Amino acid sequence: MTYLTSLVFLVWFAIAPVAAADLLPSWRSTEAKHKMLSFVNQVTTPGQPGYVPRADRVAVFDHDGTLIIEQPIYIEVALVMDRLKEEATKNPALKDQEPYKSAIAGDVKGLAAGGSGSLIPLVAKTNAGQTSEEFQKSVDAWIKKTRQPRFNKPYDQLTYKPMTELIAFLRQRGFKVYIVSGSNIDFVRAFSQRLYGIPPEQVVGSLSKLDLVMQDHRLEVIRAPQIEMIDDGPGKPVGINRHIGKRPIMAFGNSDGDFEMLKWTTDGKGPRFGALVHHDDGRREYQYDRDSSVGRLNKALDAAPAHGWLVISMDRDWKRIFP
Amino acid sequence: MTYLTSLVFLVWFAIAPVAAADLLPSWRSTEAKHKMLSFVNQVTTPGQPGYVPRADRVAVFDHDGTLIIEQPIYIEVALVMDRLKEEATKNPALKDQEPYKSAIAGDVKGLAAGGSGSLIPLVAKTNAGQTSEEFQKSVDAWIKKTRQPRFNKPYDQLTYKPMTELIAFLRQRGFKVYIVSGSNIDFVRAFSQRLYGIPPEQVVGSLSKLDLVMQDHRLEVIRAPQIEMIDDGPGKPVGINRHIGKRPIMAFGNSDGDFEMLKWTTDGKGPRFGALVHHDDGRREYQYDRDSSVGRLNKALDAAPAHGWLVISMDRDWKRIFP
Repeated sequence: MTYLTSLVFLVWFAIAPVAAADLLPSWRSTEAKHKMLSFVNQVTTPGQPGYVPRADRVAVFDHDGTLIIEQPIYIEVALVMDRLKEEATKNPALKDQEPYKSAIAGDVKGLAAGGSGSLIPLVAKTNAGQTSEEFQKSVDAWIKKTRQPRFNKPYDQLTYKPMTELIAFLRQRGFKVYIVSGSNIDFVRAFSQRLYGIPPEQVVGSLSKLDLVMQDHRLEVIRAPQIEMIDDGPGKPVGINRHIGKRPIMAFGNSDGDFEMLKWTTDGKGPRFGALVHHDDGRREYQYDRDSSVGRLNKALDAAPAHGWLVISMDRDWKRIFP
Repeated sequence: MTYLTSLVFLVWFAIAPVAAADLLPSWRSTEAKHKMLSFVNQVTTPGQPGYVPRADRVAVFDHDGTLIIEQPIYIEVALVMDRLKEEATKNPALKDQEPYKSAIAGDVKGLAAGGSGSLIPLVAKTNAGQTSEEFQKSVDAWIKKTRQPRFNKPYDQLTYKPMTELIAFLRQRGFKVYIVSGSNIDFVRAFSQRLYGIPPEQVVGSLSKLDLVMQDHRLEVIRAPQIEMIDDGPGKPVGINRHIGKRPIMAFGNSDGDFEMLKWTTDGKGPRFGALVHHDDGRREYQYDRDSSVGRLNKALDAAPAHGWLVISMDRDWKRIFP
C-alpha cells in the first residue's frame, strides 16, 4: 500500500462513521446505534476481517411491529374485517353468521376463535379470485384511505422513521433488503415500493395457493382461497431460503414470530447481526411485549442476551418514531 | 420541447437501433433481430405508446435449451447419474438395483421409467440432506469439471452467446431478467451469476421441500428428499407469479414445457413479447423438435403463429452459437 492510498484509507475510516451517522438522524447516539454502525462498517470495509462481499449482504426485516405500527390489530386483519363488513352489507343474511358477526362487532378474538392461525386462512379466503396485480391494486387503494384508530392517520404516516432510515442506509452500503412478513406476500407487495423503496420481488410472505386458469382464451394466475405456506415462526427461514437461496447476515424483528428468523440468521458462520424492536414507549406508540396477543415478544426477548441480539428500545433509542 | 432537446431526441432515435445492434454481435441482421430490437425500443422509449416503466420491465428465460445446450441429456440429469454412480461405487450391492443400474448403463430412459416426471423427484432425492449453500457449492464444483460428450467441453463453454448478449442488452435497457427452469432452483442458482450475470435470487425453479432442523444447537434449513413444486409447464406461470408478483413482458423458451409461460406472458395487456429458440442447426449444435424426448417442441411450435411468438432459427438467425 502506498503512502497515498494509506492516507485515503485513514481519512475514510475517520469520516465513514460520521457520514453514516448522518443517514440515521432519527436514532439517538446510544449503544444501539453504535452497534449497528460498527457492524455495517465491519462487513462493508474491504480488507477488514469480517468483510462480506456485496452479493452476500442480505438484510431481512419483519413487517408489522418492526417497520410499521401493528396495534391495535395487524393491518391485514383490518383489511379482512373491512372486506367481511362489505360482504355483509351486500348480503344482510350473513350478519348473524361468523366470521361476519365478529367483524361487524370489531371482535378480533371472535374472528380468531379457531386459534391464532385461523386469521391467515381468512385473509386468503376473503381475497380469493383475483390476480396478484388486481389484489395489490385493491390493497393499495384500501390502505391509502384507511386510518389507524388511535392516531387517526393513514398507515403511510405510521411507518417507523428510524427503520426506513436504516433500510436506506443499508442499501446505500450495498445491502439487498427484504421484507419477510407473516402477512400475505401480495398484501405487502402492494405498498412495499411506495412505503419503503423495496420492490415487490424483495418481499417474502405467506402464500395463497395459485391456480392457472383460462378466462376468455387468456391464461390467468388466480389467487385461490387456500393458504399454501405460512411465513411466520419456523416458516420464515424456509421462506427466505426458498426466495433468496442463502442465509441473511442481518435480521430485524419484534416478536416471537421472528425468533427462528433471527436464530437462523445469527447461527450462520461469519459476522451476523440480529435485533428486536422493543415496544416500550406507551406515550409515543404502544407499550407491550410478553402478554400481548398482537406481536407477543416473550421467548425471543429471553433468548436475546445469549444470542447477542440487540434489543432496540423505542423509548430510549429513537429520537422520533413516525415520519 | 426546445429546438435543442428535439435535436437530441432525433439524434437519439437515429442512433439508438445502431447502438443496440452493436450489443448483439452474434445475431445476424434478420427479421428476428429486428423484431426484438423494435420491441425493446418501443417499451423503453419515454413518451412512446407502449412505453413500460422500468419496474415492470421483467423478462424471463427458460434455462436448458434456451440459454445452454440440453442434449443429449438435461444437465441436471447428468448430475443425478454421476451421483448415483458414485453411490454405487461406494456400495457395490446397489449396482444391480434401479435407478443405479440405469445410471451405470447411461440409460436415461431406464431412469425415467416411472414417467417423464420421475426424474425431477430423483434429483431431489440424490441431493437431499444439504443446505442450499452446500448443494450450490457442490453443483458448481461438478459443473466445472463435467464435459458435454459431443463437444467435449465444460458446460461453461456451451451457453448460447446470442442469448447471453440478449440478457446483457435487456439489463442495460432497464430490464430485470429471471431464469425460469424446470431444474431445481438451487441447481441453477449454483452458476447463474457466473454464467449469465443473473443473481441467485432471480432464479425460479422446481422446489425441494425444505426442513428447518436443529444441528449442534444451530438452526439449519435442509433440503429434503421430496419435491414440493415442479416448475415446468403450468408450474412456470405460478412459480413466476409467486416469485415476482407480476406478469413478465418478455418470455423466451424452446420447448413445450415453456408453452404456458409464453402464453401467460403474451396474454397480458399492453406490449408483450414471446419467443422460441428452434434447434434447427444439426451441424453447429443439434437438430430436434417434435419427436425429441429431451426438449420436445411440438404444441408450442404449432401455437407460435397464432400467438405472434417469434421463432428464432439457430441456423439462420445466429452468426455464432457458443462463446
